[in-house]
Amino acid sequence: MISYNKLINSVNKKNTFLCVGLDSDINKIPNNFVKNINGLFEFNKMIINYTKQFTAAYKINFAFYEQYGGDGYRLINETIKLIPNDIFIIADAKRGDIGNSSVAYSKSVFQQMNFDAITISPYMGIDSISPFVEDKNKMIFVLALTSNPGSNDFQRIIANNKPLYKHIIEKISNNFDLKNVGFVIGATHPNELTDIRNIIPNNVILIPGVGTQGGNINQIIKANNNAPALINVSRDIIYADNINDKAMYYHLKLIKNKN
Amino acid sequence: MISYNKLINSVNKKNTFLCVGLDSDINKIPNNFVKNINGLFEFNKMIINYTKQFTAAYKINFAFYEQYGGDGYRLINETIKLIPNDIFIIADAKRGDIGNSSVAYSKSVFQQMNFDAITISPYMGIDSISPFVEDKNKMIFVLALTSNPGSNDFQRIIANNKPLYKHIIEKISNNFDLKNVGFVIGATHPNELTDIRNIIPNNVILIPGVGTQGGNINQIIKANNNAPALINVSRDIIYADNINDKAMYYHLKLIKNKN
Repeated sequence: MISYNKLINSVNKKNTFLCVGLDSDINKIPNNFVKNINGLFEFNKMIINYTKQFTAAYKINFAFYEQYGGDGYRLINETIKLIPNDIFIIADAKRGDIGNSSVAYSKSVFQQMNFDAITISPYMGIDSISPFVEDKNKMIFVLALTSNPGSNDFQRIIANNKPLYKHIIEKISNNFDLKNVGFVIGATHPNELTDIRNIIPNNVILIPGVGTQGGNINQIIKANNNAPALINVSRDIIYADNINDKAMYYHLKLIKNKN
Repeated sequence: MISYNKLINSVNKKNTFLCVGLDSDINKIPNNFVKNINGLFEFNKMIINYTKQFTAAYKINFAFYEQYGGDGYRLINETIKLIPNDIFIIADAKRGDIGNSSVAYSKSVFQQMNFDAITISPYMGIDSISPFVEDKNKMIFVLALTSNPGSNDFQRIIANNKPLYKHIIEKISNNFDLKNVGFVIGATHPNELTDIRNIIPNNVILIPGVGTQGGNINQIIKANNNAPALINVSRDIIYADNINDKAMYYHLKLIKNKN
């Protein structure tokens, strides 16, 4: 199935915008798991078992896996096998490079690992993004306005009366086919999300930063206005005392068409 | 040894700015190598044997390795073991993420794999870069003005009468310690390099884009004006009919203090 359709179907079927982020960290998993790659696999297995009925998508943050080198990549592949086929999966890898390198990254994430989508850093421009978009069965999420405080440093620089992140959203959404190009907007910026939804009412937006990072979930739901989106929660679910309850809580908070 | 000192020593000892890029691609290696991960290892071994007397540094482009998943990461580790200890090695991975993720990427590249330096995408701001800079024994190269045509799309957007890449260079070089923070400027922009050298005369600059990408080597040498730099050549050396001769050619072209 085309990944865009898989995303829409998954959000509709689960009736939630929830995406669970598997930011699995050896230093944070409970003490009953061994502190190695096998323990992380067992931890991911538990998280997926507790959350799969509640979530429309999973996001795998490559940083947490790459620190274990080849073993980390095997852990990604083994983790993906645990995820039901109808749940959307995102490689949160923030890649972006010159053409022939982006082709190789695309091959890695879409073909070797069979992710539905990848997060992309736009700094190197359109030709660094094109190789990922060419596979129209897959999706990309381009970093626009990120959830961290550092998003103020460059993303909000004003040129021609518009912040950089708007230049990026406009140029990229004009350049590429609508459906398989999404953007990343941090949950810490609800007012800007309202504004961005006026520019791109139909593009899928991936919204990280809810929970530990402090994004206000009610404001974000209102700003997104039921447009296609995935709202990611990582640490606040996977390190909860009661994972099942926390996943259900966010599932309900992020229910579709609540308004 | 502190990586900055290793870089300066290596450039001085070899008397060249040459960095060889190991963009090893299964579809481009000669027919006498098997077309799998073992063939790529044998190819890298040959390239390193032919070039190690001529080069101050090697740059490993992660895109070409990640497409083989865990095997690709093992290939990176095995390749690094072939490189003499006094030659500087760069992880060309273009990473950059929120704080706790950047900490994990830094651990991966600097501790797990023992690279001297990593390339960084600056879009997410200062707090996405800080975790890499904290290890003052290591170095970073922040993307500023890249060699690809897409560098025109966002990097040259004018804000306050200055292109974005200058805002990035100024903010980052002001924020961090001089010695372990370098920048990436493509060899396709010699005039801009002259200008940038006025802003940061002493920071190390990594200059890719010579050879296949069309950067003019004489103009670049002049623009850099013998300041600390590494000038990278990938495809034009590693896929040459006579690798030894081609490496020697670039070694001599990029000799230090020629002017």
